[in-house]
Amino acid sequence: MDLIEEHRAAEGTQRVYRHRSEVLDCEMKVAVFLPPAPEGARLPVIYWLSGLTCTEQNFITKAGAQRYAAEHGVVLVAPDTSPRGEGVADDPAYDLGQGAGFYLNATEAPWAAHYRMHDYVVHELPALIEAELPVSDRRSIMGHSMGGHGAIVLALRNPGRYRAVSAFSPIVTPSQVPWGRKAFTAYLGADEAAWAEWDALALLAGAAERLPIVIEQGGGDEFLGPQLRPEDFVAEAERLGHPVALHLRPGYDHSYYFIASFIGAEIARHAMVLKG
Amino acid sequence: MDLIEEHRAAEGTQRVYRHRSEVLDCEMKVAVFLPPAPEGARLPVIYWLSGLTCTEQNFITKAGAQRYAAEHGVVLVAPDTSPRGEGVADDPAYDLGQGAGFYLNATEAPWAAHYRMHDYVVHELPALIEAELPVSDRRSIMGHSMGGHGAIVLALRNPGRYRAVSAFSPIVTPSQVPWGRKAFTAYLGADEAAWAEWDALALLAGAAERLPIVIEQGGGDEFLGPQLRPEDFVAEAERLGHPVALHLRPGYDHSYYFIASFIGAEIARHAMVLKG
Repeated sequence: MDLIEEHRAAEGTQRVYRHRSEVLDCEMKVAVFLPPAPEGARLPVIYWLSGLTCTEQNFITKAGAQRYAAEHGVVLVAPDTSPRGEGVADDPAYDLGQGAGFYLNATEAPWAAHYRMHDYVVHELPALIEAELPVSDRRSIMGHSMGGHGAIVLALRNPGRYRAVSAFSPIVTPSQVPWGRKAFTAYLGADEAAWAEWDALALLAGAAERLPIVIEQGGGDEFLGPQLRPEDFVAEAERLGHPVALHLRPGYDHSYYFIASFIGAEIARHAMVLKG
Repeated sequence: MDLIEEHRAAEGTQRVYRHRSEVLDCEMKVAVFLPPAPEGARLPVIYWLSGLTCTEQNFITKAGAQRYAAEHGVVLVAPDTSPRGEGVADDPAYDLGQGAGFYLNATEAPWAAHYRMHDYVVHELPALIEAELPVSDRRSIMGHSMGGHGAIVLALRNPGRYRAVSAFSPIVTPSQVPWGRKAFTAYLGADEAAWAEWDALALLAGAAERLPIVIEQGGGDEFLGPQLRPEDFVAEAERLGHPVALHLRPGYDHSYYFIASFIGAEIARHAMVLKG
């Protein structure tokens, strides 16, 4: 990993690395916050998955998360939202192609060659982080919007891999809403049978562990209803006995002002679980 | 003032207004954070002045200040950094013209017609804020880089107007460094005698009140030396018996990661003074 950006922040260090991804077959950037820590300590890691149009920069510049990670002694890792580069398939729309990888492994041309964000985030990136940085193999995951979908789906598909999961304003029923239907049709094909293994709600029934899921959702979110349906997800979880807490926050919208307002509580919760 | 943006944040409200400025003879945007407050309360205001290239957006999206303002019950007001618009003189360089008003009243053509940021920030804007929002006339001021210069200069030039002043990575000797010499030559003319009334260090000797000044400065700031000389300012203050505290923070750079790391302590200090 090549260090391309470094800032002291909250008594720790905010870095951005560039590295070659074999899984995605392109160069990737990833942001890493290292809190102050005793020499030799190996700290747990919270993975943050961003939403549509974001890069590795949005979370680290706008969420104000570093001070909480410093306080609780956890590392934050924020990858980009898709493969990138001239040789990587793209689409002019903001909700498909680069910046919109949806944290899945694509099966359809022209996407399948590079769009394997699931395998990158779940396997290749943690292997790299755990080999090169002073971290342990205790991991948790959170994300926003498309990244909230990613956090829940990755946790449900990989039992035992994450000790906690939180989703801010997540897309939980992608098979049923415009953002998800468009992306899944492109990446996975028109046969909706293939979509279920990438749909948070659909995955709940077969979950091999009942890892508690916390959903933070703004009540004034402009995408509630058409794109986000947390109440459908909660209803299915209750039916199955899967522990889900929906924190509905009146008046808050879909922006980083919302994330910044509640990220501290979720980092504290993850840290407690990761260190427990 | 027309409300053009509104987000719930930290249990308060982050707004952006557009309004006509008579002083600047153009339309301006200004960001205002209103913390949660009891009905009828009139809260003190901290004015935040941003640095070169910034707009009213940088501070509100990157500093993470809202949670501290909410905790301490103070309003935050962050104006733009210059007059704006098609009819307003500009320069292609990042450090002159729009985005680089230097918080002074220009006397030279073509700048004098609009570039009167001192009068806007000190008089017109507070009059508007105090007429239209639930605030008191207790004010303090802080800023970053060019805005740190602005905060100290405005406080020194207007005794009694601000109850506290803090400067992050400020330009304190503009008459002697490239950024300041370029801007002052353009805005105030080549006669350096006119520069002294806009130079923080030069203003110290004649200050009518000895308002304590806190300077937050990153030790790894890439502009320390060529553009920022806090040690010269501190030496002059010590000679005059003007209370200045220089908090040198090893390793921190000139970015918002630095501001975000220490804004909480300065908001707490201002709030204590403003409410005392």
